[in-house]
Parts: sequence; C-alpha cells; structure tokens
Amino acid sequence: MSATPPLYGGIEAGGTKWVCAVADAEGRIIATTVIPTTTPRTTIAGAVRFFQEHRTLTAIGVGSFGPLDLRTGSPAYGHITATPKPGWAHTDVVSPLRSALRVPVGLDTDVNAAALGEWRRGAGRGLETLAYMTVGTGIGVGAVANGRLLHGLLHPEFGHIRVPHDRTRDPFAGSCPFHGDCLEGLASGEAMRRRWGRRAEELDDPGAWELEAEYLAHAVMNLTYTLSPERIVIGGGVAKHPGLMARIRARALDLAAGYPAIPELTDPAAMDGYVVGPSLGDHSGITGAVELGVRRLALA
Amino acid sequence: MSATPPLYGGIEAGGTKWVCAVADAEGRIIATTVIPTTTPRTTIAGAVRFFQEHRTLTAIGVGSFGPLDLRTGSPAYGHITATPKPGWAHTDVVSPLRSALRVPVGLDTDVNAAALGEWRRGAGRGLETLAYMTVGTGIGVGAVANGRLLHGLLHPEFGHIRVPHDRTRDPFAGSCPFHGDCLEGLASGEAMRRRWGRRAEELDDPGAWELEAEYLAHAVMNLTYTLSPERIVIGGGVAKHPGLMARIRARALDLAAGYPAIPELTDPAAMDGYVVGPSLGDHSGITGAVELGVRRLALA
Repeated sequence: MSATPPLYGGIEAGGTKWVCAVADAEGRIIATTVIPTTTPRTTIAGAVRFFQEHRTLTAIGVGSFGPLDLRTGSPAYGHITATPKPGWAHTDVVSPLRSALRVPVGLDTDVNAAALGEWRRGAGRGLETLAYMTVGTGIGVGAVANGRLLHGLLHPEFGHIRVPHDRTRDPFAGSCPFHGDCLEGLASGEAMRRRWGRRAEELDDPGAWELEAEYLAHAVMNLTYTLSPERIVIGGGVAKHPGLMARIRARALDLAAGYPAIPELTDPAAMDGYVVGPSLGDHSGITGAVELGVRRLALA
Repeated sequence: MSATPPLYGGIEAGGTKWVCAVADAEGRIIATTVIPTTTPRTTIAGAVRFFQEHRTLTAIGVGSFGPLDLRTGSPAYGHITATPKPGWAHTDVVSPLRSALRVPVGLDTDVNAAALGEWRRGAGRGLETLAYMTVGTGIGVGAVANGRLLHGLLHPEFGHIRVPHDRTRDPFAGSCPFHGDCLEGLASGEAMRRRWGRRAEELDDPGAWELEAEYLAHAVMNLTYTLSPERIVIGGGVAKHPGLMARIRARALDLAAGYPAIPELTDPAAMDGYVVGPSLGDHSGITGAVELGVRRLALA
C-alpha cells in the first residue's frame, strides 16, 4: 500500500527547443527542463541526463516535429524522416532514448501530442472527435477521431492543404518550399514574416490580421467539412494575437453561409464554444507527451 | 443446427431512387427492388412493403442522403434535416421503418454507408482509415477512421470545402446554392452541366475533363493532408469517365510536389494503389447499408 506512484517522462521535441517533464499518471508535472535543439546527439543526450535524475520513470512519451515514421513494423519506425531541419533528417528518436533509459517510449507528432493533451485534460475532455491546430512558425493539425489519435497513411499534414488565394488582394506567392501558397505558405508565422517583413508579434496593421483571419477561417471550415470535429482548438504563437480568434470565428460563420444548419455554424455563441483556445495554455504539448508515455506503457 | 440464417435489410436512400435489398450477414444479396423517391410517405411505404415480404429480417440499415441528425439522444435523431429536396426537409426516416417492421434500424449517410461497404467487403479491407468520395450529381465523402465511421460534430460535408479557383481559367461562378464555388459547386455533375450546358456523360471536350481532374486532385490532396487515409476510393457517375482517374492521380502527384516523401505521393505505381475506384462497383452503398443493419443489431 506504500508503493511510490509511477512517474512518466514527456518530451515536447520542437525544432528550437526540447521541453522535458516528469509527471505522475494524472499529468501533474513534478520537474521540467528546456534543452536547445542543436544536433540530434547532443539534444537527445541532454534529455537522457535529465530523465536519469528520476530513477522511478516507467515510460516516456515524445511529441516531435516531423514528418515521422509512425508505422509500427516499418524499419524506420520512430524516425524523424524528411525534415528540412539541418542535421535532423532520418534521425532515430525512439531507439536512443529506449536504450539509454530502458523504458518503453511512445512517439507521435507534436500536434497529435497537443491534441491528446487537450483531449485528456483540457478543452476536449469527453469528446469523441477533436482537432487541435497550431499556428506558429508552421501550421499543423493533430486530431483524435473516434477516441484515438488519427494516423492513417502517415499523419495529418494539414498545413499543406490548399485554400483560395486571391492574388489581387494578396500578391504574396507563399513561403512553402514545396507548395508555395498552401495554407502554411500563406498563413504561418514564417509566411507573415516574409510577406510583411516583420515578425507576427510586431505586426499591428489591421489589414494584415484580417487577411490572416481569412486564411485561418478557410482552414477552420475545411477542417469542419472534412473531419467534422466536435471542437477545434487553435494554439500556437500567432494565434495569441489579440482579436484574431474573434475574427476567425466571425469569418468562419460567413463562409459556412448557414450550411449545414447546426448551431456551431450559424449561431455566434455556439461558434464561440466550437473554435476555442487551448485550456492548457502553453502546456497542451507537454501534457500530451506525458500521456503518450502513459499510453505506451499500457501497450508495452 | 438447422436454424435459418438471419437476414438483414439495406436501403440506399438517394434523392432519385431508393435501392432496397435483403441480404445475409455476409452481405450476399438475396432480393432487391428499386423505388422512385417521391414523397416521404409513399417512398417509405414502398420500402416497408418490400421488406414485409421477408418475414425473417432481423435488422435494417439505411444509407441516406442528408444532412442527417445522427446524434444519439437528439430529439431529431434519425431525421433528414435541412435538405433542399422538396418535401423531404425534417423527415423522420428511422421511426416509420422501425414501427412498421419492428426491427432495429441503423442509419448513416449514403457516403458513410459506401465507405463502410468498401471497408468491409471491397477496396478498404483490413485498413484502419479509409475515405470514400462520390462524384455524381453532388460530391461527398464518407470515412472510416480508427476502424469506425467518422461522425464528430455531424458528419463530413466534404463537398463544401473550398479549393483554389482560378477565375481566369474557369470563370464559372459555381453551382452551390450556399457557397457558390466550393468543391461541389465547381466539380459535381450539376456544376459540369451548368458550366458546359451538357451532362457529364455527354461531355467529350478534353479541356473540360482536365479542369475536372484539377479540382478533384485538389480534393484528393486536401483529404490526404487532413484525414490521412490509407486509401481513397472514388465512386459515383462522374468518376466513371474514361481516363479521369488517371488524370486525377497524375495531377495529385504534381500538387503533392514530393511532400511528404512517401511512395503514395511520389511514385505513380503507389499512387495507382492509393486512389482507386470502388471494388464493389455500383454496390458499395447497398452493401454498406446492409452492414449498417448488421451493426445496428449488434448495438440493439
């Protein structure tokens, strides 16, 4: 009866920094550290050192930037694959952590981890189907569908959908190295920086934010018509701009044009509860990463 | 040991006709009939009469045109809701069938039924995640995600996503009464008829079909980047045009531009197995409708 409760590790593995946390099975965080993302070897070694201070860890979960190979049985399972980030293409993330720490390691995309975090402990509790969209340097979506994270062929790469681009209103050709003017190429923080010559945080021009809301409202509606989530959580640094969420909701109602005639797409109050910010603030990702560890243990 | 095997009913409830079938639990069809879609009362009565000839039915499944209220617990569960089809808005489909036939009745969208049919007995067998897109008078998507039909907020209404529309190349304003130039407004059979003044079956102009392939390739890629299905089945009358599938696949490979670098999006042979026609031909919907009955019984 006096056994110590099990502890889990979580890593929010981003392109700039790795946030590492130790938490209990309920997601209460006990210790954290931040490691700059340098080379794979140095970064992973830093995470290992942090976790080795906590002898009782029973599993670790990683929410990582991608693309990732998540197909169990694939020889490259657990690898970051064709990322443009220098030094990180084809990096095995799972094996070195598992070897050094001798615990099961769960892995999913950073946005799937954030979706899982919000679904278990935040704005998506009790729902069957939830989408989490991050709008920061890039744009991505993670989703829980029918109570499980969505994978399929690979995992959602929602930043790369195409949305209408009126070149008269917005002559910017787009910043995506693959697609030019896909959603990420038009509406990510990087796209804003290149279009306006200034970082999103420093941008005040109402026209710039109206254009941003236009693209993100298209994103909300395409996500709604494709995945039919019960709620859409929008996180990430760009989404924090004051007033942006209200503009997105208003424009999404315009675009829906009353179809289908359900409250979420016709009534502004219901829309306010449909497109929301993250309940966990900046902790959606790390909370979900810990939960990936808890779930990985259940499978181990 | 000599018990008669259970029989199930299925209805593919379309806006023009209702296809009704009696089948065994393995989906083998024993009897069918076709009833024109007139008023709700007459059409439903015709279906009831057909099924009453088969005393041993144990459950019925219906794949219906929509939109539908599928939220269990909703007062309007089992209703066709805000359809523009005259006489059919707010029609309760489930209750009259259940009352007259005294069997459990399963209901889902026509495209979810077709997705289920292809997933259980056709091109999607063994997959976790499958999308079925129909391109006929309208455009719709049904999907199995994580082994279950996708519902969420309502159900996918994929025909209404927006895709890029170059008005220089295609000045047609679109045929959707709600959105104008959404996907359905640009690429459905109805859109083709209004743009070209001729039904798709009578249309030979290669430019018309190149434009059609452009929109449907955008649909394929947006679906891929959002839902990440393991396979996309494209059915419906318009999709039968010779050469159209090959054009869609080729253009989808162009649009993917190598991202992410997986065989399905980079290798034409793998793409051929990723975007396919229905294995069940014109029977995806009725096969899935019967399966909705089998599944409804499991829940009853």
